[in-house]
Amino acid sequence: MPVISAPEITRFVEQILVAAEVPPHKASIAATSLVASNLRGVDSHGIQLLPFYVDQLLAGEMDPRTDGRVISEFGSCLHFDGQNGLGQWIADTCCRHAVRIASAQGMAMVVARESNHFGAAAWWAQKMRAAGQIGIVMCNASPLVPPWQGKEGRLGTNPICMSVPGPWLLDMATTTVAAGRIFKAMINGKPDIPPGWAFDSEGVPTTDTARAYKGMLMPLGGYKGSGLAMMVEILCSVLSGGAMANELGGIRFRGKTVRVSQMFMAIDVSRFMPVEEFTARVERLVKVMKTTPTAPGYEEVLVAGDPEWRREAERLRNGIPIEQGNWDALCKTAARVRVTAPVV
Amino acid sequence: MPVISAPEITRFVEQILVAAEVPPHKASIAATSLVASNLRGVDSHGIQLLPFYVDQLLAGEMDPRTDGRVISEFGSCLHFDGQNGLGQWIADTCCRHAVRIASAQGMAMVVARESNHFGAAAWWAQKMRAAGQIGIVMCNASPLVPPWQGKEGRLGTNPICMSVPGPWLLDMATTTVAAGRIFKAMINGKPDIPPGWAFDSEGVPTTDTARAYKGMLMPLGGYKGSGLAMMVEILCSVLSGGAMANELGGIRFRGKTVRVSQMFMAIDVSRFMPVEEFTARVERLVKVMKTTPTAPGYEEVLVAGDPEWRREAERLRNGIPIEQGNWDALCKTAARVRVTAPVV
Repeated sequence: MPVISAPEITRFVEQILVAAEVPPHKASIAATSLVASNLRGVDSHGIQLLPFYVDQLLAGEMDPRTDGRVISEFGSCLHFDGQNGLGQWIADTCCRHAVRIASAQGMAMVVARESNHFGAAAWWAQKMRAAGQIGIVMCNASPLVPPWQGKEGRLGTNPICMSVPGPWLLDMATTTVAAGRIFKAMINGKPDIPPGWAFDSEGVPTTDTARAYKGMLMPLGGYKGSGLAMMVEILCSVLSGGAMANELGGIRFRGKTVRVSQMFMAIDVSRFMPVEEFTARVERLVKVMKTTPTAPGYEEVLVAGDPEWRREAERLRNGIPIEQGNWDALCKTAARVRVTAPVV
Repeated sequence: MPVISAPEITRFVEQILVAAEVPPHKASIAATSLVASNLRGVDSHGIQLLPFYVDQLLAGEMDPRTDGRVISEFGSCLHFDGQNGLGQWIADTCCRHAVRIASAQGMAMVVARESNHFGAAAWWAQKMRAAGQIGIVMCNASPLVPPWQGKEGRLGTNPICMSVPGPWLLDMATTTVAAGRIFKAMINGKPDIPPGWAFDSEGVPTTDTARAYKGMLMPLGGYKGSGLAMMVEILCSVLSGGAMANELGGIRFRGKTVRVSQMFMAIDVSRFMPVEEFTARVERLVKVMKTTPTAPGYEEVLVAGDPEWRREAERLRNGIPIEQGNWDALCKTAARVRVTAPVV
């Protein structure tokens, strides 16, 4: 398996984006955020996405030059039109607005419509965390998930992410797994996936990767997962006036813009207590969880963020292993825009 | 099974609370909110709770006379100390603050510590809905749930509730089921519960009602349910400075105050679009879900709120059936405070 350092692959991704006509300052933000996801071990939201972004860019289905625009700002609320710009640029802009508004008002709700894929939500929620705030980020996504008891994809994996000052970070799809986990199995030639991940195209549960790839994802825990996905849909697309549910495109589909909506909420912790006190309380809560005696068959209790921070420390030290299928796809994409791949 | 009309049982519950020294205006709010839950078919959060409340009141473990106090208010943020008052009174007060602040600022985050059980979150989130706002309500709860891979209860069922202008209402525990579902099976002598609901006290999955009653609830879908419960815990107790996780008491435990924390968030829809437009968009989204072809074995796609609204229409017409075990417990409680039960 090719192994590459974070700075090296970031440079490579950046070059590819610039060659695909993304302005350099935006390419840099997108490359950094994608590689950050690989560092955390969340490969489904890392450089695996790049070939799809480049497909979109070369097909002229995304406008990397627009900065988007503020539709309105009032008190804690900001309404943003992404104008089909680069998702990472829109997210970065909206996070800056959210932090600014929450600093002034105590909290902020920034909702963007007509955006594009922004990578992993965790990267953006951590922008608020870096400002001593609680960051909550959600977005709707391509309709790959049937509502519970249905058999046609109408909802997305619609993730919920929250980052706080302290050792805890949640970033979860409201399906059993993120779509990228199935794409990853497909790209890398794994024939089977675990039960509970997906339905085939008839709405029957399946463990066959190819059938799942053409099928649909399962809502987390049944009807409650569908409820959470609708919550995300309402806070993102209904409120933003953007494309809802099956009106969305997707990065894997050509001939249609993505039209995703995103929500960035910030809460200024210092309105309730000093950030140091809040952080200490989060640490204490996390310790209560981690010192729980383990259930039969388990050796450790982990909290949200633990596996990713461990992986990050290791990959910063040893480099990022990229599965062969992903590496080949990346090099093929580089060749399309005449960028030379680094030797790994 | 006894059947009783909503006004009649509301009056009965109110009389019991007043006899247990709850001021009449607070007793009225609590009784109405509890019976509203029975009307919606959510019997686990209805009058079934009253005997526990009365136990608390008679043991002097809750102070029904205090109104609580505002610790601070700044911009969109309000910090409230419930001072161990009646949960429903604190919730009602906090909802009024949330609606007021969101009307002025666009959004509001009201966090209360040292509160008591407030019934079902849905009743409170609907206060924001009635004002043309999105209401999000969460609370922490007695530590009946082990963190994923643990075998000791350290987290609560920590519900997430969202109400919006439009035909959709989510109110879900972050466990497979709410604790009240197991209490209901126990109170009414049902020996078994479905798989996936609970662990025994050793952290082994069980379907035995008695073992589950003494055991722990399962987090929704495994580690993601634990992540959501922690999200709720952080937004409620960490941020409020209240009791966290296993520091909480519970309505079924004597000799300890409950010390629950609650969060009431309001978002003023009109900062983004007219409420009528938002409502029409929610209706359209719900229609997209309900017109999804059904999966094999199902006849209809429902969205969050559907089962409860149907049940409510029926129970408003035909009265509320109360299981014999629940009715007996209610009459026994009434007798303790010398209130005569109505004839049913």
